Order: sequence, then C-alpha cells, then structure tokens
Amino acid sequence: MTEAPHLTFDLDRPGMTTGHLVVPKGADCEALSLPVFSLNKGEGPRLLITGGNHGNELEGPIVARRLIEWLPEAQTCGRVIILPVLNPLALQAWSRNTPVDGLNLNRVFPGRADGSVTERIADAVSRLLLPIADTVFDLHSFGPTWDFPPAVVTHPIADADLMPKTLRMAEAFKLPVTLLWEYDDTPGMFDTWAHSQGKVFVCAELGSGTVGSEALAIYEAGLRNALIALGLVEGKADHPTFRQQKSSRTLETLMSDALKSPARGIFEPRRSVLDEVKQGDRIGILHPMDSLSANPIDICAPATSIVLAVKSGMYVDTDARVALLARPLSL
Amino acid sequence: MTEAPHLTFDLDRPGMTTGHLVVPKGADCEALSLPVFSLNKGEGPRLLITGGNHGNELEGPIVARRLIEWLPEAQTCGRVIILPVLNPLALQAWSRNTPVDGLNLNRVFPGRADGSVTERIADAVSRLLLPIADTVFDLHSFGPTWDFPPAVVTHPIADADLMPKTLRMAEAFKLPVTLLWEYDDTPGMFDTWAHSQGKVFVCAELGSGTVGSEALAIYEAGLRNALIALGLVEGKADHPTFRQQKSSRTLETLMSDALKSPARGIFEPRRSVLDEVKQGDRIGILHPMDSLSANPIDICAPATSIVLAVKSGMYVDTDARVALLARPLSL
Repeated sequence: MTEAPHLTFDLDRPGMTTGHLVVPKGADCEALSLPVFSLNKGEGPRLLITGGNHGNELEGPIVARRLIEWLPEAQTCGRVIILPVLNPLALQAWSRNTPVDGLNLNRVFPGRADGSVTERIADAVSRLLLPIADTVFDLHSFGPTWDFPPAVVTHPIADADLMPKTLRMAEAFKLPVTLLWEYDDTPGMFDTWAHSQGKVFVCAELGSGTVGSEALAIYEAGLRNALIALGLVEGKADHPTFRQQKSSRTLETLMSDALKSPARGIFEPRRSVLDEVKQGDRIGILHPMDSLSANPIDICAPATSIVLAVKSGMYVDTDARVALLARPLSL
Repeated sequence: MTEAPHLTFDLDRPGMTTGHLVVPKGADCEALSLPVFSLNKGEGPRLLITGGNHGNELEGPIVARRLIEWLPEAQTCGRVIILPVLNPLALQAWSRNTPVDGLNLNRVFPGRADGSVTERIADAVSRLLLPIADTVFDLHSFGPTWDFPPAVVTHPIADADLMPKTLRMAEAFKLPVTLLWEYDDTPGMFDTWAHSQGKVFVCAELGSGTVGSEALAIYEAGLRNALIALGLVEGKADHPTFRQQKSSRTLETLMSDALKSPARGIFEPRRSVLDEVKQGDRIGILHPMDSLSANPIDICAPATSIVLAVKSGMYVDTDARVALLARPLSL
C-alpha cells in the first residue's frame, strides 16, 4: 500500500508551527520531508509562499528563510505558509530539473500520486497546501545565463476577474518590472494550475540566481511590500533600489518579442536590461566560430522597445533566444 | 591505417595564412578541423595563442578572433599562431569537458594519437603547434560560478630559470592580478606540458565567462600589452580599467588559502574580489536548507589577506571551496 502525502502537523493550529510536508517514497526514491513553516493568526488573507521550484534558483529559498525570521514579530492577522524549498533534489544538484527523473517540477502540476518523484512533489503541494491558500507567491530567479531585472511575472489568464486581480498583486511588490508575459510553454506550470483553481498566483523572477546582496535586498523588500498590500503586516511600502533607480513599470512581452540568433556561435550581449532602444539599435553580436572567414553578425531591435532580458555570453544554436523585448502594458 | 594529425598549410610560409589543424577521426567521432591563423614576419619571438580549451569559457575565443583582425596591421616581426577554439566539441555544448568522452582537455596533455577525441586534440596541438612556439598564451575564463578578477596565472615551476621568466611574462599583461597559484591538480595541464618543454606558458583567467564588454576590453588590452612586451607590436602598454581602478599586483595563493564550506547548503557571498580582509572578517554565509532550525553559518577569514575569488551563490556540499584568499608574492 502506498503511503499518502501528509503534513506532520495540524495546519489549523493557531500561532507558529514548523513541521514537514512528507512526499511518499516511490520506486525511484525514498520519501522526502520538506520543511514547512506556518503562522496562523486567524481571520484574514491566506498566503502560500514557495521557493526552490527550480533547484538552481537560490534567492527564493534564502529570502523565504529570512521571512521566517521576521514574520512572527510582524504578522498581524491571517495565515502564511512558507515552503522554502519545493524541490530539494534539484537544489542539492544545483539543477533546474530533478536529477532522478529529469522532470521540471514547474511543468508537472497538479502532479500524480503514483508518478515519479517530481510528480509526487507537485501532487503533495496541490493537495495539501494549495487548497488552503487564496494567494500564492512562487519565488524564482531568472538564472545565471540571462541578465533580467527584478520582476513579478504573470502569464495571461483567461478568467476576466482573476487577470486584473493578479496584475494588481504583482504590482504591489513594487519591483522594477511587473510583467505580463505571453509564453508558449505554460501547461503543467504551478501558475497555470493555481489559476485554474481561482487562486491569485504570481511568480517573482529575480536576477541571476547568484545570490548577490542587491538581489536579496530587493527580493525581501518586494515581499514586504506585498505583505503590506495584503494587510498581513503593517508598514509603508517603498520601491527597492535597482541599479541606482527606484521605479516600477508594468510591461508586456509577446512571443514575437523574442530575438533569436541568426546562426550558431558565441553571443555577446551589448545592451543592459531596461535600456530603451529604437529600430536598428544593436542588442548584441553573434560570433560564428566554425570558420575564420565568417564575420560577426549584429542582432538589432526590430522596433522601438525596452530591453527586458539579454542572454549572457553563451554559445548558442541558430534560432536560440538571445533577448526579449517589451513595451508598456496597455490593457 | 590511422590518418596522422596535420596542418592544411605550411606554417613556415611568410605572411598571413589561415587554414586548419586536422585532428584525425577515431572510433568516437569524425575528424575535426580547427581553424588556425598564422602570421609569419620572420625573425623574432614565436608566440602561440590558444582559446576555447574549456568550452564554457568564451572570452578567449572572441578576443582571439579580434586579435586576428588587427594583428596583420600591427605585427612587425616574429611569428604568431592563433587557434581561437581548441575544443569545438566542448564549445558547442557550452561545457567545460568534451561531451563525447567526458574528458577535460586541460588534464590530458600531451595527449595520445590513438586516444579518445580529447586526447587526439591534445596530441595534435602538442606535436604540430607547441614545438614551433617559445611562448604560449592560453586564454581561459574563470567561469560563471565565481567572482574572480582579471588575472594572468602560473603555477609554481621547478625550473629555476623558467619560473621568473614566466612571472615576468605574466606581469607584462598588466592585468589587475598576476597570480602564482599552488594547485594540486596540475598533471596533464597544457601549462605543465609546455613548461616541461621549456616554453614560457601563461594562462589568462578572466572573469565570469559571460562575455561582458568590460571583460573583453580588459582581455584585449592585456593581450596587446603582452605583445608589446614581446616586441611583436609597437605601442605603449597601459593598465586596463577594472571596476574603476587601474592597477596591477602580483599575488600568491596556496592550497591552504582555500576557504571551505562547513556544511551543505546555499552559499551567499558577502565580499568582492580584491577586498582586503582581517582575521574574523566575514567572507560569506552558508545557509543550511535541510532544516528550518539550522542557523546560517558565517564563513570568516582566518588571517589578514586579500580576497582573490569568491564563489557565486550556489548550493555547495560540505568542504566545497567557496573562496580563495591570497597575499602579495614575496620571492
């Protein structure tokens, strides 16, 4: 008989509790015990915060742990549940996907009780934690191979009520960018599943994943702003400082806004994120390496836009994405 | 019968020539043709420049290609041979090691003619290019998971004449750091083999491997300085600017200067490279993630020293290196 996923403590208990979310063992690995923090101050918003969905995105787990330190003094009402590391197997491997089954946790929601370990993690979270929350913050990093501004992201949502509510929640972080991102690979995302359950779900995407002190400070300030907006803690929200600036903008990027490499070779970035560019401005250079007679190729902006993301120097194949452009969102 | 490694052109031909170094096919893959540039202006120093020894270190190949653009106008004497990409298989995989055989090219020198492809590359270079040179610059990057200053590195050399000659060559780059690095994993390095053949061999290690414009400018300026010092081109050497500073220092780091993680968890860097630190100063923090009750652990400097390298935020195991300290070299 298979053990069912369970919590080692009663989530309805008032006050602060720590315990574990137990993901049952399967043919591929032993049971996992994911540390969980719960702070129940009665009536009010019900917030679930998760980090470590991808194992090489490290700011989220650290900021979630810091939140656990100051929240007990600060939270005035409602319930906050924090799971700093959703996927400890991927974290320990410093890998986006789970090494055991090769799966991306953020593509297997709502998971399967009789699936491989990544699917069992998604199943445990979907069954035991998600139903309790009305709002979810999933803390990602954009990863070490891109330059990307601190942003709170949502993908387009069909539900006409949930879309503006989600955007307002995202904007409440007051990060440099709030992003509506048209994306073609959303099935199985934690986002998509939570939205289908009527939850306000936003995904924070922060910087390089290399745990710089500026990134951690921005992440923590953004989370505090969001908790203030929800009414869970008291205080005055403030824009965090990013590259000497305190500002927020709400942007939109479409699938057609991705710039792709015209050939294989080494991509050299030439622009920084949030630069405003005009048609023909050079975003980066592709250096072919197969022949000494092949010249470098400029990769240019097709229209006036804002640089949202630029790939770090990397060897890329033809048609690999090397930059994302964006423009102010008009709803 | 096995084909022998060969050049598709006569290296002794005067003037500029481009062609290929052909690495014969083997059981594991087809023959490789590595683009080679040669500029022969007669008597004078004989310099071999190589990049792409590790496939995820991208500044070297780009700077080598740039050098090929301006050298024909600038070189006044001697011979320069440039091989921008030693290991195209690793480059195309954006991988340190060769995917086909899993080997690190920089640990298999002098290679084997009947070995796997990585060994055949080393063999071709050792037989056909190294004998022609009296000086070698191998262009590396320190990689995206460390913060490291632009440096020219040599390991200790037993030959009492070659050691100071090599250090002087390294210092001629005028990069922020010239480093004498005591290291325990030197057998099979290109460095070690070239030194055993009496060559002046230095290894440039530059930054993150993410091809930032500052890194490329420093790398190119350093190479130009070194070419001036050798007398291959005319001009005045100048210190490149690194983080608003123009300076050079010669440092030494010993094996005992590596700081290791006291536990497994996420490492958070707290110091920048070239910071001067005293005993007890915090270099970084280790955040254990297995339990919510485990506190973060400070990782501190054991003595007055200079921060040479700091790991970027990363999940590390117990005893993993997270920082390297150094001190001024006294010979």
